[in-house]
Amino acid sequence: MDFDNTGFEAAARELVGKMTLAEKCSQLKYNAPAIERLGIPAYNWWNEALHGVARTGVATVFPQAIASASTFDDDTLYEEARAIGYEGRAKYNEYRSLGGTEIYQGITYWSPNINIFRDPRWGRGHETYGEDPYLTGRMGAAFVLGIEGKDRSGNPLSKYKLADATLKHYAVHSGPEADRHGFDAKATAQDMFETYLEAFRYCVEKAHPSAVIGAYNRTNGEPCCASPTLFGILHEKFGFDGYIVSDCGAINDINAHHHVTDSPEKSSALAINAGCDLNCGSAYASMLSAFESGLVDEETITEACVRLFTARFRLGMFADDCEYDKIGYGEVCSSEHKRICRKLARESIVLLENDGILPLSNDERLKIAVIGPAANDKKVLLGNYNGTPDEYVTIYEGIRRKARGAVYYSEGSGYFDGERGDWDEKRYADAYLAAKRADVVIMCVGLSPDFEGEEGPFGYGGDKRDIELPASQRELYERVLAAGTPIITVNVSGSAMALGRQSETSRAVLQFFYGGQYGGEALAEILFGETNPSGRLPVTFYRSTDELPPFEDYSMEGRTYKFYEGEPLYPFGHGLSYTTFEYSCLTAHEKDGGTDGAYSADFTLDVKNTGERDGDEVVLLYVHETDAECRVPIKKLIGFCRVSVGAGETVTAAIKTEPDAFCHVNEAGETVAGHTFEVMCGNLSLNIQR
Amino acid sequence: MDFDNTGFEAAARELVGKMTLAEKCSQLKYNAPAIERLGIPAYNWWNEALHGVARTGVATVFPQAIASASTFDDDTLYEEARAIGYEGRAKYNEYRSLGGTEIYQGITYWSPNINIFRDPRWGRGHETYGEDPYLTGRMGAAFVLGIEGKDRSGNPLSKYKLADATLKHYAVHSGPEADRHGFDAKATAQDMFETYLEAFRYCVEKAHPSAVIGAYNRTNGEPCCASPTLFGILHEKFGFDGYIVSDCGAINDINAHHHVTDSPEKSSALAINAGCDLNCGSAYASMLSAFESGLVDEETITEACVRLFTARFRLGMFADDCEYDKIGYGEVCSSEHKRICRKLARESIVLLENDGILPLSNDERLKIAVIGPAANDKKVLLGNYNGTPDEYVTIYEGIRRKARGAVYYSEGSGYFDGERGDWDEKRYADAYLAAKRADVVIMCVGLSPDFEGEEGPFGYGGDKRDIELPASQRELYERVLAAGTPIITVNVSGSAMALGRQSETSRAVLQFFYGGQYGGEALAEILFGETNPSGRLPVTFYRSTDELPPFEDYSMEGRTYKFYEGEPLYPFGHGLSYTTFEYSCLTAHEKDGGTDGAYSADFTLDVKNTGERDGDEVVLLYVHETDAECRVPIKKLIGFCRVSVGAGETVTAAIKTEPDAFCHVNEAGETVAGHTFEVMCGNLSLNIQR
Repeated sequence: MDFDNTGFEAAARELVGKMTLAEKCSQLKYNAPAIERLGIPAYNWWNEALHGVARTGVATVFPQAIASASTFDDDTLYEEARAIGYEGRAKYNEYRSLGGTEIYQGITYWSPNINIFRDPRWGRGHETYGEDPYLTGRMGAAFVLGIEGKDRSGNPLSKYKLADATLKHYAVHSGPEADRHGFDAKATAQDMFETYLEAFRYCVEKAHPSAVIGAYNRTNGEPCCASPTLFGILHEKFGFDGYIVSDCGAINDINAHHHVTDSPEKSSALAINAGCDLNCGSAYASMLSAFESGLVDEETITEACVRLFTARFRLGMFADDCEYDKIGYGEVCSSEHKRICRKLARESIVLLENDGILPLSNDERLKIAVIGPAANDKKVLLGNYNGTPDEYVTIYEGIRRKARGAVYYSEGSGYFDGERGDWDEKRYADAYLAAKRADVVIMCVGLSPDFEGEEGPFGYGGDKRDIELPASQRELYERVLAAGTPIITVNVSGSAMALGRQSETSRAVLQFFYGGQYGGEALAEILFGETNPSGRLPVTFYRSTDELPPFEDYSMEGRTYKFYEGEPLYPFGHGLSYTTFEYSCLTAHEKDGGTDGAYSADFTLDVKNTGERDGDEVVLLYVHETDAECRVPIKKLIGFCRVSVGAGETVTAAIKTEPDAFCHVNEAGETVAGHTFEVMCGNLSLNIQR
Repeated sequence: MDFDNTGFEAAARELVGKMTLAEKCSQLKYNAPAIERLGIPAYNWWNEALHGVARTGVATVFPQAIASASTFDDDTLYEEARAIGYEGRAKYNEYRSLGGTEIYQGITYWSPNINIFRDPRWGRGHETYGEDPYLTGRMGAAFVLGIEGKDRSGNPLSKYKLADATLKHYAVHSGPEADRHGFDAKATAQDMFETYLEAFRYCVEKAHPSAVIGAYNRTNGEPCCASPTLFGILHEKFGFDGYIVSDCGAINDINAHHHVTDSPEKSSALAINAGCDLNCGSAYASMLSAFESGLVDEETITEACVRLFTARFRLGMFADDCEYDKIGYGEVCSSEHKRICRKLARESIVLLENDGILPLSNDERLKIAVIGPAANDKKVLLGNYNGTPDEYVTIYEGIRRKARGAVYYSEGSGYFDGERGDWDEKRYADAYLAAKRADVVIMCVGLSPDFEGEEGPFGYGGDKRDIELPASQRELYERVLAAGTPIITVNVSGSAMALGRQSETSRAVLQFFYGGQYGGEALAEILFGETNPSGRLPVTFYRSTDELPPFEDYSMEGRTYKFYEGEPLYPFGHGLSYTTFEYSCLTAHEKDGGTDGAYSADFTLDVKNTGERDGDEVVLLYVHETDAECRVPIKKLIGFCRVSVGAGETVTAAIKTEPDAFCHVNEAGETVAGHTFEVMCGNLSLNIQR
């Protein structure tokens, strides 16, 4: 059972009842001022915790969200989120001692980002859990439960919430960054319910987050932060009962960029009347004037305020018996949190190719060249929306510390080298020589968060123009390849890259999503075989940008493993191990059905480790509906689990599915039971007839 | 005895004799092309090695030059330079295997920078050995001897030179960076010979460097790269017999910015006729046309070419018996080179104030807050004109690794925070809380090479507008001070800063010049008392910018410890220890005199360590001439040595001086013997009458 809001809401209603209208209006802004006569301290609602408490000094910096997704380990992500909740409380307890909180000092986090990474060019894609709504839902829900102080089933672990999680960006939001303040994303009803809204539904139902943030863009014509359609779905269809926040400046965008209204006052009225309670930005400064103009009534303002104060009461902000008040700074970067951070880093690295060169034997005669712009770059560990780690290990550092033999380093090139001067370092030659000197090259190419991210001067307004390696790195790769030394490519990025050339010419290829403060250590463990790789791709790796539909097109046709008809370079879910697993005995255990009495079942199978190394295996269960009357996915992930299997041993893996796993979404956006299915798990399949 | 050039010059003359005029002209450019018919490979003369092989991948990154100067340890700087020579050869041997060398791949280094750091605002001051010509000469000469492969007395250690050193920038050059391409530095004859040229004289006489680089600016009206006056002094007065190089683009500046000529052709003729043999830049591409216009004769071109090829022969570039050809990559970042690097880092840190709080006892209960923009910044280790270290230890990292108790880190502010957005991290609050949490604060303020350096978009064209801490750091300091926790300030910079407030309110103050790859480790050793500090300031620390003459004014009046009449915050030569030293028995040992039979003597004294810790002591010997008829320095450094003295022990220190130590330079720039002197060493003094 979830938190019982009754008492908190009553207390909130009583407190809000003492406020003047102007005071109520003031509390609808993210930087809510103190109301001293009522004993209310100032509170800044804006804080971030995407993969660790962010932007407020030292904190454990866990792997970026996309890297969490590649672990397919929602149990450990839950532990991460709980750790974040504790670190955040420790900081909040200190900050609060200085008086009211400023930005990034509170316990209301505008995380997780559960948008669908529908196109690899989206700069912010690495903030998400990838391209699949089910995976995104599972990871998002685990995050919410952990950070809010609930158990894995959603039961509160204390009288108060540990923190508020906020799902973002509701909805559909996924680029282009350059246009986000005025863009209208057009999505069909089918794509909305099947893809763009599904993870929101899942997270709301499974984890009851405190809040949701509206997106910058319009969706099908309505500004997301003032969308009766979207908010209606959220409350009525998904059962959301928390508060809604605007993205920062998004309400002002309604007049300034969407041109749906012609003033902040009207935008504010439109938003609050639609159900947006809290404004990040300044538009709601005009709320009192909107009231005076008759655009909004007092009850609407009062109810928004009550929702916000219910949350504050539920966080124990006005209590003297909140156990979380005792959390001390010792939680920050504790050894337990670092253990979780390391575990996720290890699990997040994906082995894409291996001809047997990996793992390397860590011999003192083995000479290793670590080459590339990402090799010794701290930023690729941290991603974005990040904190400051107390220590960190880059890829080069990780290898250097662990290797028994000589390690040579060469940056080789920048991520993007434009016109460089005559007096610049000749890095290609340096890289070539390092490769010549070595027995094996660890080639660290890719991107950094400086080149894919949020609305920025970098990249293409924050996005990527294409998914190919930048020219300077392609050149670097060829120069190093010419040295003739075996290459192990480590692609570093928060998104899919076109690695065809590397696939053809490298002896092994690994994907390193922005891996957190210990990312380099984890990678080195994998290279030397101390850790058996187990990460899986949470996004499709296409062969080239030519394979992609136009970025601005929000149709899911041709996107993600569900609808892309071509042959990807590396499919969603791909990831190798140093051992081999054999699946058998895939069995359906029928259970009570979903919508319209749809077929429903959980599954078991035996997973045998047929190799000589212990290892984790991520088991992915897909379904394809073979006789649907509308478009259905080529296949659809309906369950997964991660199992540890000792060499030679067999483990029975149990995979639960959702009640509606065997339904599809039709063109009208309705959930419809299917009839004939193929269930796929590794090389096994089952045919199921309803 | 020095290298015998006879054979090399004969070989050069023979080879040059086979060249066409056009071929000879082509060899006067820094990027000299191959002449295949003569078996001459392409050679790029431009390389840098200010404090380690620079700009060509991994190399040991020794402390920046200004930090070397603060060690007053020219013996160890000699070792550094020798190590650099070996690392550079190792790289050259590899590069050369690829064919001709490109930029930063050769063995002709445009180091050291022996300009006088006359004003703390000069951005490039940290490339120098400080404000004193004698110290600069000593350090510069040690560098030249080491890198060129000679012993400490100047005797060649091999048939060939290990590398070429190049003294720069001849002469007077020291800002403003923004105006350097057209600036006319006006200096009196007295200032020229007493200050600006003295270290060049010293280094040429003591170390016979292969080359000298002309400066960008004009000096007293003549473009330095084409100055008959300056080159005349260099050859005729100082006995220089090497080759002269232009700074990069400086010959083109003669027409483009100095407007002394109206074409590159005329500038080139002016330069080569004055004696500039090698052009960095493109002006000498017009040399053939200058010849055809009758501006330069073939013999001048031939002789320049012979000088350059003499150098190449002397470096063994056309030999098959050069032992340096065998140097392998194992020299790069060898453990021996790292030992030298660490030693210099330890010796370079200057303890400016200490009320007894230092050294810290490294107790596991001691909680330390490390705060400030320089605390965890790699760039402040590397300085400029740097290589890439294979590993490095920032100040925070050094403390964190060594401390037994908790270490908290907060960046606190940027170096310079301009207008920051609403959404920026509130770093002051974070810093305050870190301080509150701790028992002691290590406050790392100052600058990075991003804010003082060569002609750039940063700072004030590379220079500093003032010597005060930037506003954001002053604010940070006050916020942290308000926490009430004892502060140990570590000022990080390559130049003197106004630290009055820190002097008043910190319990200890240290100066960390850009300290090389192990700078942070060395600092931590000092904080915890594993190393006893022994560095001394190579520059005067003034109280404020108001104390300084105008930056553009090249008169030495009011500058440096020699002519500044005010009371500095920390004088040149200042530096404390954890132990105490007592000087006694200062004795002059008269020797044959200098110019005009000037008085001359070496000195001895007893240095007793009266404290309880072993330590190094830098003994500085000054003279003041009491009855000169012209302006003479308030005092003048004429000798120094570094001695290691065990606790309770006494060591006799021997200080040699130059023959002309007891001379002065008069207004005409002539060296004149003095008569009455006070010799000062610590609290001891001797009165000497000729």
